Amino acid sequence: MESLIVKLAKDFADSEVAPLAEKIDREDWYPRELIGRMGEIGLLDPLHHGVPLAEAMFSLLQIARRSGSVALLQDVQGELVNAPLRLFLGDRYSDLLEDMASGKKIGSFALSETCCGSDASSIRTRAFRDGGVWRISGEKMWITQGLYADFFLVVARTGDLKERSKNISIFLVPRSSCVKAEKVEVQGNRGTGTARITFEDCEVEASHVIEKGWEAVKYALAIGRIAISSIALGLALGAMEEALVWAKEREAFGKKLIEYQGLQWWFSESYADLLALKSMLQVTCDEFQRSWKEAEPFVSALKLKASNSAHRIIDRMLQVMGGMGYAKGSRVERAYRDVRLTRIGEGTDEIQRMILFRYVENKHLL
Amino acid sequence: MESLIVKLAKDFADSEVAPLAEKIDREDWYPRELIGRMGEIGLLDPLHHGVPLAEAMFSLLQIARRSGSVALLQDVQGELVNAPLRLFLGDRYSDLLEDMASGKKIGSFALSETCCGSDASSIRTRAFRDGGVWRISGEKMWITQGLYADFFLVVARTGDLKERSKNISIFLVPRSSCVKAEKVEVQGNRGTGTARITFEDCEVEASHVIEKGWEAVKYALAIGRIAISSIALGLALGAMEEALVWAKEREAFGKKLIEYQGLQWWFSESYADLLALKSMLQVTCDEFQRSWKEAEPFVSALKLKASNSAHRIIDRMLQVMGGMGYAKGSRVERAYRDVRLTRIGEGTDEIQRMILFRYVENKHLL
Amino acid sequence: MESLIVKLAKDFADSEVAPLAEKIDREDWYPRELIGRMGEIGLLDPLHHGVPLAEAMFSLLQIARRSGSVALLQDVQGELVNAPLRLFLGDRYSDLLEDMASGKKIGSFALSETCCGSDASSIRTRAFRDGGVWRISGEKMWITQGLYADFFLVVARTGDLKERSKNISIFLVPRSSCVKAEKVEVQGNRGTGTARITFEDCEVEASHVIEKGWEAVKYALAIGRIAISSIALGLALGAMEEALVWAKEREAFGKKLIEYQGLQWWFSESYADLLALKSMLQVTCDEFQRSWKEAEPFVSALKLKASNSAHRIIDRMLQVMGGMGYAKGSRVERAYRDVRLTRIGEGTDEIQRMILFRYVENKHLL
Amino acid sequence: MESLIVKLAKDFADSEVAPLAEKIDREDWYPRELIGRMGEIGLLDPLHHGVPLAEAMFSLLQIARRSGSVALLQDVQGELVNAPLRLFLGDRYSDLLEDMASGKKIGSFALSETCCGSDASSIRTRAFRDGGVWRISGEKMWITQGLYADFFLVVARTGDLKERSKNISIFLVPRSSCVKAEKVEVQGNRGTGTARITFEDCEVEASHVIEKGWEAVKYALAIGRIAISSIALGLALGAMEEALVWAKEREAFGKKLIEYQGLQWWFSESYADLLALKSMLQVTCDEFQRSWKEAEPFVSALKLKASNSAHRIIDRMLQVMGGMGYAKGSRVERAYRDVRLTRIGEGTDEIQRMILFRYVENKHLL
Repeated sequence: MESLIVKLAKDFADSEVAPLAEKIDREDWYPRELIGRMGEIGLLDPLHHGVPLAEAMFSLLQIARRSGSVALLQDVQGELVNAPLRLFLGDRYSDLLEDMASGKKIGSFALSETCCGSDASSIRTRAFRDGGVWRISGEKMWITQGLYADFFLVVARTGDLKERSKNISIFLVPRSSCVKAEKVEVQGNRGTGTARITFEDCEVEASHVIEKGWEAVKYALAIGRIAISSIALGLALGAMEEALVWAKEREAFGKKLIEYQGLQWWFSESYADLLALKSMLQVTCDEFQRSWKEAEPFVSALKLKASNSAHRIIDRMLQVMGGMGYAKGSRVERAYRDVRLTRIGEGTDEIQRMILFRYVENKHLL
Repeated sequence: MESLIVKLAKDFADSEVAPLAEKIDREDWYPRELIGRMGEIGLLDPLHHGVPLAEAMFSLLQIARRSGSVALLQDVQGELVNAPLRLFLGDRYSDLLEDMASGKKIGSFALSETCCGSDASSIRTRAFRDGGVWRISGEKMWITQGLYADFFLVVARTGDLKERSKNISIFLVPRSSCVKAEKVEVQGNRGTGTARITFEDCEVEASHVIEKGWEAVKYALAIGRIAISSIALGLALGAMEEALVWAKEREAFGKKLIEYQGLQWWFSESYADLLALKSMLQVTCDEFQRSWKEAEPFVSALKLKASNSAHRIIDRMLQVMGGMGYAKGSRVERAYRDVRLTRIGEGTDEIQRMILFRYVENKHLL
Repeated sequence: MESLIVKLAKDFADSEVAPLAEKIDREDWYPRELIGRMGEIGLLDPLHHGVPLAEAMFSLLQIARRSGSVALLQDVQGELVNAPLRLFLGDRYSDLLEDMASGKKIGSFALSETCCGSDASSIRTRAFRDGGVWRISGEKMWITQGLYADFFLVVARTGDLKERSKNISIFLVPRSSCVKAEKVEVQGNRGTGTARITFEDCEVEASHVIEKGWEAVKYALAIGRIAISSIALGLALGAMEEALVWAKEREAFGKKLIEYQGLQWWFSESYADLLALKSMLQVTCDEFQRSWKEAEPFVSALKLKASNSAHRIIDRMLQVMGGMGYAKGSRVERAYRDVRLTRIGEGTDEIQRMILFRYVENKHLL
Repeated sequence: MESLIVKLAKDFADSEVAPLAEKIDREDWYPRELIGRMGEIGLLDPLHHGVPLAEAMFSLLQIARRSGSVALLQDVQGELVNAPLRLFLGDRYSDLLEDMASGKKIGSFALSETCCGSDASSIRTRAFRDGGVWRISGEKMWITQGLYADFFLVVARTGDLKERSKNISIFLVPRSSCVKAEKVEVQGNRGTGTARITFEDCEVEASHVIEKGWEAVKYALAIGRIAISSIALGLALGAMEEALVWAKEREAFGKKLIEYQGLQWWFSESYADLLALKSMLQVTCDEFQRSWKEAEPFVSALKLKASNSAHRIIDRMLQVMGGMGYAKGSRVERAYRDVRLTRIGEGTDEIQRMILFRYVENKHLL
């Protein structure tokens, strides 16, 4: 029983995302207009329109079925940028939230640095107070939409590195001449404008700051991890759909592939994984809405399991399709590269294990 | 936030099950009195007392933390026997249901045969109509509580083998001289009275028959699969608890085991698995209560994932404990043998994959 | 204790292959001159120069450390084309063998078709006798070097499809106007001129035919499987080298990555896999030289284990490198895509399992 | 092409070991006479009779096919006790070596302690010099044949714990009133007299000491690791044989189990693993005979892969046999418990990973 928004997302993905997906990947082409279209029909930031988290995530999953790249753009607009803005500065920024949700503006979440991908509290980007304003300098890496963003949520520290997460704030920095963006080419999720961004003495008004910076980072990462898990699940679902059609048509040694039990079991295992992830996603969204801080172990477990299970599913589906799954042009070929990011981005597998272990150590098991 | 019944089960498991668990295993000793105690306090068949399915399963899990064998006895009394009796013959059998729930009577679900463990619709046990009664003859295998049961729900066919599941009924056969039980010794879940049972021309009154036999078998297996999944989860939880205590005390090369990241990650992965299974169990119980027939893919996915994940978790915990986990006397050593049954009993991994594949084939993915 | 040829291959790979590897991949650029260079110094077909099989394979492995694509070209020249030519037509074709080994000529092994990748005995390409010559028509797919080959070993059938492998011969077809090649773009091993090749009524002299066709196909596949296993091993070794350097430099949470035991264990497992594969490769080469037909189970086991182990190793190394392993420009990023082919090309995992099962069934275990 | 000794071992295992295997396991029964028989025909310590290491190991493997317990006894007599005695004290102890090889005497290798299984250089057992003799006191744990040994090779330290491996020697301690043995019951490899041994002020002559103690410990462990890997391989082979017979006879859903491709692939993967381990075992024995110290990474890789692969194979075979593989009486049931020790005994998986990592760190890859 799908909700309306999920149905809408599915139709949109099939009719408007699917035809562009290969071009986005092959040409590393940023689909600016498509973002506008998603904004128009309410799919760019469903949370902005009051859609419950679980439904928003099942919608995102439908987009990812057709294009991991487009889903990632939704994730950045809706979850990594708008969600923390709404929670921590919402009253002051309703226009910006609206422009983001409608796709009029493009935003980026600028956290990672070359020094320290997963160890986010070690970042070097500095903010100095200068009278009534702040001045930001530093270099950010792997910034999705970095080439195209109208503004950046820049995570920076206001004091000594030794204090780690304690002196971190988030600064809303509009694109201007102080910002330099350089393209970074990656294996998958192409066409998302991934960039290395240099901020050189960028001036930011005092009102453009989230002062509970680390809490907001954790919030963005938490909701971002749920989002990237949904993307992983969507990629896996898309790969299964394509491989299933292939397996029903293709013959080898006088039988359809689908008649081989060895392959049937791959589908069975993959389907069991899908149902497991769907259950986890549902329960995690419920826990998150109850208390996003207490949901942390669910979020990390979901991120770890979803990205790894999806990776394994897609690998099996590529094997089902053989040479066809290895050749450019298949969804599976793309998904195989796209899904690999989900085990790295927004907290690697290893970070999730570290977080989970803290709960084990304190005997929070079941 | 644990419900009262789960808390009760946890306390009972710690205080009354734990002290007997090793004796039950080592001496293959059937804890008849403990069953009575569980009946007294309402833990032998929580569903009988109106406890929601999910809570009943989380209670069962708590028993399994301490003893897979005791949990399996609860499963047989409450899920494999009482649940189908209640649904299909409930109005006529309220006394028997009560005697089972209170532990006054012991029942067995007699389905498996040597010929055909997983292929249940191929069973050979026959029922012949003889005037107003039925006469049952055949041999059943791997029957839990078979040595001690006061009566058996015997699955038998009333006609030709070719019709497979179509002519199957379930007969309520009291223990009498027509029933012979022979002990079968198994690796784990010992002390549960596992037996080979021979029925030789047992007479059964016409009113003691569930005529929608195959449907009742499927119902019993469905609820039994949820139960055995809960047991797997409980065994894994118990093993983690024991290994965690060990890892915090034990030193090697000048550090506590728990300080080794390699081992920490086993705990993290295992904890992520626990949360995944907990989510699946919750969602599957919800789906089952909505419609037990439509819940089939959730049930099979849960059974497949829970038994395999629990097996993997316990294997890791045994490795944490090293020689101590291999020696008799540890919970982990017992759990390692007990959990292996959960991938075989009440439908093997392979049966679950076959069931799941039927849904994939028909494109019921997400 | 490395042999001279292995040392030579290693130096050549480091000095001449490494600088071109990224260009070959990114631009899908065929390194025609490099092939000539390899021919000059004896690395293009070591078997031609009497190098023992194991040493030739350890040389190939060294090339693959730096570029899977270049290694694949060596494989085609030396193992898929020259090796069967030498064994089955050697006396008549010494000039061609020499031109291939020196890199003056380029050859392709044209077996696969769209209809039937792994099920090679179902191919549709037909050869008709026409007086003293043969006429070949058909379409081949996934043909490495297909865009650039001077001639093709075309596997075709001379009679009815029903006879499957019985009426198969191999025809030596020079490139001419009857041959059309169309580029096929693939995920990895790029720059190898992969093509779809159409043969339209190509005339072949009767002396240009290997009549024991199926035996020669099996021989080419056997030696090709050993070669592709060596490539897999080389890709894994290269990835480990790169990730090891990274892990020794990179810090996270105040420690070098290499100090984290979780990551250390990935290296340990990977190293154990390397030693296992090295042992298998050595033993398989010995068995192959004793009797290539009896070596079949060793060859299939090697192919299955090497490609899968290498895939797993490279996946771990990508995880070690995180974002850097996902970005274009790293060896690991390339190896991750390249290695995926080794589970598909020259007989999929599934084909190897089918072959191995035939031995199990006949009780040839150890 | 089996050597004579391997053929002899195979016949002996089938005719004399097989009939006792279940009794040894069920009754925890030590087969003292069988040891004598093995001694008589030269199978108790093939190395003593000049058999090359690889052949000795392939013989041991054949014993393990039928009984892990009996194989373990051979391992203790021949590899853990006699091998270091021969290398380090051989000239002085030819009579003892002969008595051990013929099964007249029983020996034990007493290294492990409760404090420190894998961290052997932390042992607490102390040896004090007292005039011309040594006095040994301490407690050893998990000592195979401990209940029955005529003498013990006791690893003890002669000075402070801080010096770790530097002050360790090995003392040849005959059973006498200073030795107390207490049975320790374990999950598998039963009937091997596993014991906790207390040495209370045992007097040892100065000539009964291996002074290069740590080197001898490492030698014993190295050869013991090769032996236990051979045992793992033998257990796996035995399980495959039994399950193969079963799969060819048993029907489900109208087909023999062996006709199901899902199960065929388990056999294929298992067979590929067997061939991989066989290759590793052969190469490792060659390396060991060239230089036992330089063979260390091969030994650790073999131990890690053999025990884990064998565990996985036997787990699959248990699944093939279903309830029959879980019931007492099957070889698979026993092998499932026996093989679990091979990942713990003579250096856990984790120790092997630590050793392997030292080579990786120093860039000894291939």
